[in-house]
Amino acid sequence: MSDSAFYRVEKDLLGERQVPADVYYGVQTLRALENFNISGIPISHFPDLVTALAMVKQACARANRDLGKLESAQAEAISKACEEIIAGALHGEFCVDMIQGGAGTSTNMNSNEVIANRALELLGYQRGEYEQLHPNVHVNMSQSTNDVYPTALRLAMVFGLRQLERATVALQQALAEKGREFNGVLKMGRTQLQDAVPMSLGQEFNAFATTIGEEVSRLQEMASLLMEINLGGTAIGTGLNTEADYRELAVAHLREISGTPVTPAADLVEATSDMGGFVLLSGMLKRTAVKLSKICNDLRLLSSGPHCGLNEINLPQKQPGSSIMPGKVNPVIPEAVNQVAFTVIGNDTAIAMAAEAGQLQLNVMEPLIGYKLLESIRYLGAAMESLRRDCVVGITANEAVCRGYLERSVGLVTALNPYLGYGKTSAIAQRALQTGRSVAELVIEEQLMTPEELERLLRPESMLGPILREAKALA
Amino acid sequence: MSDSAFYRVEKDLLGERQVPADVYYGVQTLRALENFNISGIPISHFPDLVTALAMVKQACARANRDLGKLESAQAEAISKACEEIIAGALHGEFCVDMIQGGAGTSTNMNSNEVIANRALELLGYQRGEYEQLHPNVHVNMSQSTNDVYPTALRLAMVFGLRQLERATVALQQALAEKGREFNGVLKMGRTQLQDAVPMSLGQEFNAFATTIGEEVSRLQEMASLLMEINLGGTAIGTGLNTEADYRELAVAHLREISGTPVTPAADLVEATSDMGGFVLLSGMLKRTAVKLSKICNDLRLLSSGPHCGLNEINLPQKQPGSSIMPGKVNPVIPEAVNQVAFTVIGNDTAIAMAAEAGQLQLNVMEPLIGYKLLESIRYLGAAMESLRRDCVVGITANEAVCRGYLERSVGLVTALNPYLGYGKTSAIAQRALQTGRSVAELVIEEQLMTPEELERLLRPESMLGPILREAKALA
Amino acid sequence: MSDSAFYRVEKDLLGERQVPADVYYGVQTLRALENFNISGIPISHFPDLVTALAMVKQACARANRDLGKLESAQAEAISKACEEIIAGALHGEFCVDMIQGGAGTSTNMNSNEVIANRALELLGYQRGEYEQLHPNVHVNMSQSTNDVYPTALRLAMVFGLRQLERATVALQQALAEKGREFNGVLKMGRTQLQDAVPMSLGQEFNAFATTIGEEVSRLQEMASLLMEINLGGTAIGTGLNTEADYRELAVAHLREISGTPVTPAADLVEATSDMGGFVLLSGMLKRTAVKLSKICNDLRLLSSGPHCGLNEINLPQKQPGSSIMPGKVNPVIPEAVNQVAFTVIGNDTAIAMAAEAGQLQLNVMEPLIGYKLLESIRYLGAAMESLRRDCVVGITANEAVCRGYLERSVGLVTALNPYLGYGKTSAIAQRALQTGRSVAELVIEEQLMTPEELERLLRPESMLGPILREAKALA
Amino acid sequence: MSDSAFYRVEKDLLGERQVPADVYYGVQTLRALENFNISGIPISHFPDLVTALAMVKQACARANRDLGKLESAQAEAISKACEEIIAGALHGEFCVDMIQGGAGTSTNMNSNEVIANRALELLGYQRGEYEQLHPNVHVNMSQSTNDVYPTALRLAMVFGLRQLERATVALQQALAEKGREFNGVLKMGRTQLQDAVPMSLGQEFNAFATTIGEEVSRLQEMASLLMEINLGGTAIGTGLNTEADYRELAVAHLREISGTPVTPAADLVEATSDMGGFVLLSGMLKRTAVKLSKICNDLRLLSSGPHCGLNEINLPQKQPGSSIMPGKVNPVIPEAVNQVAFTVIGNDTAIAMAAEAGQLQLNVMEPLIGYKLLESIRYLGAAMESLRRDCVVGITANEAVCRGYLERSVGLVTALNPYLGYGKTSAIAQRALQTGRSVAELVIEEQLMTPEELERLLRPESMLGPILREAKALA
Repeated sequence: MSDSAFYRVEKDLLGERQVPADVYYGVQTLRALENFNISGIPISHFPDLVTALAMVKQACARANRDLGKLESAQAEAISKACEEIIAGALHGEFCVDMIQGGAGTSTNMNSNEVIANRALELLGYQRGEYEQLHPNVHVNMSQSTNDVYPTALRLAMVFGLRQLERATVALQQALAEKGREFNGVLKMGRTQLQDAVPMSLGQEFNAFATTIGEEVSRLQEMASLLMEINLGGTAIGTGLNTEADYRELAVAHLREISGTPVTPAADLVEATSDMGGFVLLSGMLKRTAVKLSKICNDLRLLSSGPHCGLNEINLPQKQPGSSIMPGKVNPVIPEAVNQVAFTVIGNDTAIAMAAEAGQLQLNVMEPLIGYKLLESIRYLGAAMESLRRDCVVGITANEAVCRGYLERSVGLVTALNPYLGYGKTSAIAQRALQTGRSVAELVIEEQLMTPEELERLLRPESMLGPILREAKALA
Repeated sequence: MSDSAFYRVEKDLLGERQVPADVYYGVQTLRALENFNISGIPISHFPDLVTALAMVKQACARANRDLGKLESAQAEAISKACEEIIAGALHGEFCVDMIQGGAGTSTNMNSNEVIANRALELLGYQRGEYEQLHPNVHVNMSQSTNDVYPTALRLAMVFGLRQLERATVALQQALAEKGREFNGVLKMGRTQLQDAVPMSLGQEFNAFATTIGEEVSRLQEMASLLMEINLGGTAIGTGLNTEADYRELAVAHLREISGTPVTPAADLVEATSDMGGFVLLSGMLKRTAVKLSKICNDLRLLSSGPHCGLNEINLPQKQPGSSIMPGKVNPVIPEAVNQVAFTVIGNDTAIAMAAEAGQLQLNVMEPLIGYKLLESIRYLGAAMESLRRDCVVGITANEAVCRGYLERSVGLVTALNPYLGYGKTSAIAQRALQTGRSVAELVIEEQLMTPEELERLLRPESMLGPILREAKALA
Repeated sequence: MSDSAFYRVEKDLLGERQVPADVYYGVQTLRALENFNISGIPISHFPDLVTALAMVKQACARANRDLGKLESAQAEAISKACEEIIAGALHGEFCVDMIQGGAGTSTNMNSNEVIANRALELLGYQRGEYEQLHPNVHVNMSQSTNDVYPTALRLAMVFGLRQLERATVALQQALAEKGREFNGVLKMGRTQLQDAVPMSLGQEFNAFATTIGEEVSRLQEMASLLMEINLGGTAIGTGLNTEADYRELAVAHLREISGTPVTPAADLVEATSDMGGFVLLSGMLKRTAVKLSKICNDLRLLSSGPHCGLNEINLPQKQPGSSIMPGKVNPVIPEAVNQVAFTVIGNDTAIAMAAEAGQLQLNVMEPLIGYKLLESIRYLGAAMESLRRDCVVGITANEAVCRGYLERSVGLVTALNPYLGYGKTSAIAQRALQTGRSVAELVIEEQLMTPEELERLLRPESMLGPILREAKALA
Repeated sequence: MSDSAFYRVEKDLLGERQVPADVYYGVQTLRALENFNISGIPISHFPDLVTALAMVKQACARANRDLGKLESAQAEAISKACEEIIAGALHGEFCVDMIQGGAGTSTNMNSNEVIANRALELLGYQRGEYEQLHPNVHVNMSQSTNDVYPTALRLAMVFGLRQLERATVALQQALAEKGREFNGVLKMGRTQLQDAVPMSLGQEFNAFATTIGEEVSRLQEMASLLMEINLGGTAIGTGLNTEADYRELAVAHLREISGTPVTPAADLVEATSDMGGFVLLSGMLKRTAVKLSKICNDLRLLSSGPHCGLNEINLPQKQPGSSIMPGKVNPVIPEAVNQVAFTVIGNDTAIAMAAEAGQLQLNVMEPLIGYKLLESIRYLGAAMESLRRDCVVGITANEAVCRGYLERSVGLVTALNPYLGYGKTSAIAQRALQTGRSVAELVIEEQLMTPEELERLLRPESMLGPILREAKALA
């Protein structure tokens, strides 16, 4: 049996190569597989990206057909191949490493080759019969990596952001629900880890909900920035090799195919090399990461103990906490989320460097930028979902512990400020700290207030907001 | 002569201290000066911050007066002192180091003390006669560092961003002007530093203008995020020690005094500890820095040479470039701007870490966040202004050099793709590279086109955009 | 058929769970798989780590046997199971996500469970018969995650660094070889991208070799820092639950098993929470990344063109460079290496944040630190190997182009400084630049030197080092 | 009165300029002042750098004199001027901004001009009479910015590191002293903020001392890396314009003048552009910053409260902690140190980017690298000194609080592991947590041990290290 049962021969600028007979990718993908072997993360690791590539290719084929540049049958075959990929087929053929030189050319050619070979099959030809339908000539018609690849990356991120948005909303709701549940749990607020003034545990969780909720509109805003695409700009944004109406047609088709309101960038030369949208998105994801990390730090601190920590809340137990300390259970979910946050922040540094490294008409580091952004988006979504499902919804409050802190605290004295003045209250606070006696006791002993007056003012409930009318009446 | 000629004695929680007689600040500022001695950068280094602090204090005094909590004369004196500071007086008294522990308490107390002492003078008292008007009791009435300080920081940043916005617009215009000037200068575009396809130098500068221009609306958006303030939240956002109507009054006064449409945050507990706006602003400033750095890299590359580099443009000569190499002149302005960009990116890392370090009801690292953001804003503004004034406006083109590249380049072959196909053009390109002969020569030699056809297609002017009608007709 | 054919039931602190019958891991691994599902990168992605874990477990078992705490048969079975893993078996069973909460407990328990179940088999029992040999009681005897996990991480890094060192040496040699090959290729050196003074291309490549060569001893130094381990410290470094001689025995066995001169840390409490060695290692890897990136930037710049760039060298062609521009070939290998460098630098940010987040007696973020360091080590090794094999060894010089730059350049004038003085040479340089005439021509025209004198001085060969004797004689 | 009373006229490559009559700097410094106006931090902000520049200039003058290239009188005058500067004179004249384009040329020329003018005065001439002694021709003889500037930066860092080393040693000693003082204070160790196993507060502080102590030898190592200098390499490392013996002479003189064992780099071409030593130093400073930040986080956590936190230790009170909450005192010193740490970590990012931006024979971003490294060194030294003096030495322990945690904690159960097994102790731990009853009570109730046995085993003192003989006997 001859070799040809196992291989087909393909040819490119650098010469002939044997491509395994059973794969849909071609010679240029083969070379890329040999050239880039670093992260071990293939394009198919991000199904959103494969889908987006197919959508872009389909849109371009339709535009070329509309303009009469591509024959109907060819356009139809390409379009059908793309639809299959969008439906989930052939993803394994998108196998080039996410970290690649060439500014995404290998990803683009991987797409062109897979689509061409699948389209050839649909047309009744053998894979590799490129004279019938060629990866560059037909699938890539009117296109360049430099407009197709960034467009697909942006689309993939928009898809990912939608999922992240859902996870964000769900987490916000879970936190808000806890805010309502813990509304009646009074406790001491802490600033700089020092006893400050009273609040409710509900206010604390509500603040978490608020801060996460704020991310939703910001993330939507970022998604909308990404929808400005440079499709039609080809190699450097001048639109070389495209027909006058091609750009509008291609973008319109992509809008329809993707169900996403993409629009053409005004200055395609700028849009070809500009990484600004990516940098800002990464900065925004970093903000989300910073917020998540702060919340997780707080959850770990509030649940610290049980006997040697704050012990105000209990996190759900997820797994034994120690291979040596029996009974120990750790806050493993927030700990994992912290690490996701640090990863996203680290990715932001990598992205900034890659973005800064653009030169003249292109940024050749775009594959790394795309990879790290897609990773950050996915990690954050997974982390939020885990934090919600495996942690937040199961949190319970140790109400008595919370109340105990409140009653012991000198911080109550702040509420007397408006009535006794900063000087007298400072002195009482100092004495309370030194003697260990309670603020109330001292105020009464020093005849600064009657017990009744004091009782009304120091009701913690009065201290969760601005001065109430009745307290005011007293003064 | 007694010591009292040189000193007055002030007292706080920790005891008595001698304060120099001639200063307006007081005992708490004195302690802060001793405690924090690291960066050597005092608050007064950022006049916008001093101004913002005075505006906030004035607004609060007016709100307290409206509510009848502060006597008219006291309110008037505080207000007058603040106005003097806003007008530029007493800035030297704001002397605490920008890097400080205490979450800004020392900055707030520095303000309270300076304003109190100036107000005392205006009322006819001596500095230090705090029983008449007290830094904490009267100037800081209804306030906490934790609402006043972030509010002032945000306001100061808004002021700084206005200036940055002006510098951005001016730079964008200067670049666009060069874009127009260089419109007729044809050259080769480069992707991955390899010869790509034709473009005009005007398109290149216009892309710079576009990318800088995009920053304007983004920066405005960031400024609007900063205008959501937590004034009235006091210690932890519960508004403890304030009257029910105080917050609205104070914010309204601040709006009027500052001429800035500040609004109260919806969740003051969240707003007290949240650094999200700062993190996103820093991410945005990083984006601007990345863009500036990329432009400066390009300017340095395009002006490299004169004999051993690209030499497409000339930057204005600003200073002798070498202590040893006669006649050498370097692109010193872009080089300085690159370094500003790296500083801003480094600041972003510091800000992210500081933001992540918030705990429970407060972020005690806010002074660093404020310091680094104000620094980044100022640096970027100065860098843009310098880049515009000392570099961009004086750039000239080496038109013949640019045209020479175009004519020598094999990249012209791309334009033949739609007519000859990717396969044939690849072969011609390879042959041209190997033989050093021109693309045109080979096309004609191989009788693929007539000289006339070719001439029309390869006119560089035809290659700066989509396929023209006449070229199309030909095909 | 009952469920028990597919599952066995295991139990831990949180209750009973069904574990698939055919796996070697147990209930705690099962929980970890459910709890941590973020990166998709399992422990087995890093074979060095699996190997190191097995080595540590084997060493501990032997120490416990020596002390009579573990029965011979049990110790033998554990030891045999570890040997199989070290030989490459069962790696797929190490399946917990690298990003995990719990400070590595899940990785440690994954190891304990796999080893226990394999040891049980070797002893003739069924998997899950933990009353015979228990993951915690026997495999983890005298151990805590907090000493075992960091020890294994360090060992895995040492293994990785050995491979990185080999790649570094190989790259250094390839660069040095090019340095020798290009020794006679004269060119102009460039500072700030401006023409500077003459050098040889060999000197340029030799500088690359030198800078890479310097990494070797630094990386070795880092490896030696990692060899200080906290094995025997158990939970917090106090060695609770260990026998007095255990630590020394365990470390000695590990030294023998691993063939690596590990030593016990002097202060085990410190060593348990300290991430200093990791932070410094990451800083060092960042240095290597920065150097690699700078070299790749230079290679891309020197090979830019061919017609519109510097074109001093040719990189081997690895793949077609464009989907649209025929004949274009890009420097894809250096471009990929740049992206590796940015990844390593981003990892360094993540590692610093994780290291800073340690609290009290432990750093719970250690899994991320371990993950990102192992990734950086592997990426750098792969990048160096690729850069050497796929790029450096195939580089050729365009000697005529290099020489042409030299002859055209005004920079030669620097060599006249010692004879004519900075003032005169500056004037000549300026005139040469303005008129386009050569330096030599002008010097002779102005009768500053005879043609013969000049010829001797301006021989480029004389300008590659300090002033030669004959030139000196002239002056 | 004519202008010449106020100005002298100087000339350079770009033409004539009026220089203020009373300054020592000259025309090139004047241009640099105009060109670079960003950070507002002049060279003189770092006296070590000014001193180092003068030392280098003095060494070069002596080498040139030895070789007969510089007349004795001139060499003597230059040398004397340098000595005055080393002694502290004329520092104010070093006024160029630290952030500058030109790769340090402006700093070098600032030095050359100040030294030339002071030397002219010493020789009896007027400032500006450069025909007698010229900044470029004589002061800069045999030098280039590209060898002089990096050499001076390195020397300045070595000086700074010596001071940092002293601060490090002092802090280590203060922490170790507390370690001894708190040796008898028993407490619970915490991992992942959860109760772990017993330890002493002395062990905790001793671990701080150990981790800081480890920095000393690392910092020394970094200093020794910096001592490899490229003096004598001139423009690009080829030593153009120097005599054969010059380099050795200059380095030897510098060694003597500076009292620092500097040595020449082996490959001067590499050394001219290599930033590796700086990157690694920055990585090391980051490590120190990470450690300091972790310690400060711990100090703030351990001193949290007083009533609503851990309250194990008291930090010295440095200033009132709140403008609104009477009696509140905050851990302001550690808080400031945290912010220093974040600054240093941010600087490291900036330095990495600047180092990566080197191109071909030079890194033009070196001024930023130098600036940020000198800043990090100074900040860390100041922070350590402040942490020691204003915080650590005054820390006191709340012994009863610490002991109370220990007695309440379930974590004691770990010590029973070796006697009862992981299974039984887990069950007891769970029961203790659920019922709130003590571990001891439950063990006795379940007749697992006699009260006497238990008492011996659970003595916290027995739990601070490996198993004691008597406990072992029991088992």
